[in-house]
Amino acid sequence: MPDKAVILLSGGLDSATCLAEARHQGFSAHCLSFDYGQRHRAELRAAARVAATLGAAEHRILKLDLGQFGGSALTDPSLAVPTDGATRPGEIPVTYVPARNTILLSLSLAWAEVLNAHDIFVGVNAVDYSGYPDCRPEYIAAFERMANLATRAGTEGCRLNLRVPLMRLSKAEIIRMGHRLGVDYSLTVSCYQADEEGRACGLCDACRLRREGFAAARLPDPTRYARPAGNPRQA
Amino acid sequence: MPDKAVILLSGGLDSATCLAEARHQGFSAHCLSFDYGQRHRAELRAAARVAATLGAAEHRILKLDLGQFGGSALTDPSLAVPTDGATRPGEIPVTYVPARNTILLSLSLAWAEVLNAHDIFVGVNAVDYSGYPDCRPEYIAAFERMANLATRAGTEGCRLNLRVPLMRLSKAEIIRMGHRLGVDYSLTVSCYQADEEGRACGLCDACRLRREGFAAARLPDPTRYARPAGNPRQA
Repeated sequence: MPDKAVILLSGGLDSATCLAEARHQGFSAHCLSFDYGQRHRAELRAAARVAATLGAAEHRILKLDLGQFGGSALTDPSLAVPTDGATRPGEIPVTYVPARNTILLSLSLAWAEVLNAHDIFVGVNAVDYSGYPDCRPEYIAAFERMANLATRAGTEGCRLNLRVPLMRLSKAEIIRMGHRLGVDYSLTVSCYQADEEGRACGLCDACRLRREGFAAARLPDPTRYARPAGNPRQA
Repeated sequence: MPDKAVILLSGGLDSATCLAEARHQGFSAHCLSFDYGQRHRAELRAAARVAATLGAAEHRILKLDLGQFGGSALTDPSLAVPTDGATRPGEIPVTYVPARNTILLSLSLAWAEVLNAHDIFVGVNAVDYSGYPDCRPEYIAAFERMANLATRAGTEGCRLNLRVPLMRLSKAEIIRMGHRLGVDYSLTVSCYQADEEGRACGLCDACRLRREGFAAARLPDPTRYARPAGNPRQA
């Protein structure tokens, strides 16, 4: 019996790569996605397709209305998603969802405990998204420490591991890793404001980083755009 | 303008006391309750009454289906709530909900961040419920540390404080504290299997601890029981 792992799967490029890596390491993959009041649902359909093609043992979607707290352009319709260039260094983007990773990791922890899984994979990355406080290595280490004090697993001497295989990789390195592991990136949706068919806007920070990543990895970009993509040099 | 605090309010004795203490310290109280698939809803109605009578600025109930993960007698109808005596020392009771405090604190953290509140009150207690790993002081300290790395507040130099005024108090001391602060305990519901009217079973661990607490505090027990309460000495 392979060891079980919980994988946080958003339907985007990073979490798909993370799932492929967990499978590559031999884990039975129990994927968890969240319907947290995102502006579009295309990424949840993408998550289901990615889970199926990468041989996940299970895929669950948990409904969670983070939108009622407000505070982020990703869940609050009154805040616009910025399309005017990358966020300045040191600034937290308006697309940051308050405490999102903490909430999603906490729910993963509950499921891991019930499954008796000792590994949680999450595709956070400190390189391209350094504006999000809850993507930093010191945050992940603190969450792991807290989790090992929070649970039955922690108290019974079985360590819970928070696995972040993408933490130190550039977007291009992530894409090359997923390419080697057979990820079909045409199934994934990264865009903050994809349309109902999962086609990307080509303008938001997530689209920009993704397009630049494929260019830097020297691999064909299979992203489906709602409008013709601009020249990455202008981004 | 008083400082805002988020208060986790279950509708039970401990969280009601915690809310009274937050108000006593001068905080504007933003109370958060969870509809997480508990067996009974009486405690949510109790939370609303407690929030109103203790002058909360706001009370929100967030729906969250923890039951779909299973693993606890409080959310899984296939597991019985034990009524045959207190859990043995060192053992984690079947009523433990996997990662519950971590999940509830994470959601409080999101709301605190949106409210720009730097204090979260939670009525955890290491004395009477020592079987729950996520009620221990070292767990609370680890969560607070993680929270300060997770959020905008943490990165901007404003410390987030996790306040646990009941941590080291016995049930009798908590009851005396709430009594001094004017808590009407007849409004609160502690029982793990209260009926629809909020009447307690008188038999579960929570009922047992509560009844013994009022006896030890030498204060009248205003709890409404569904059946005549047994002699606490037999508990």
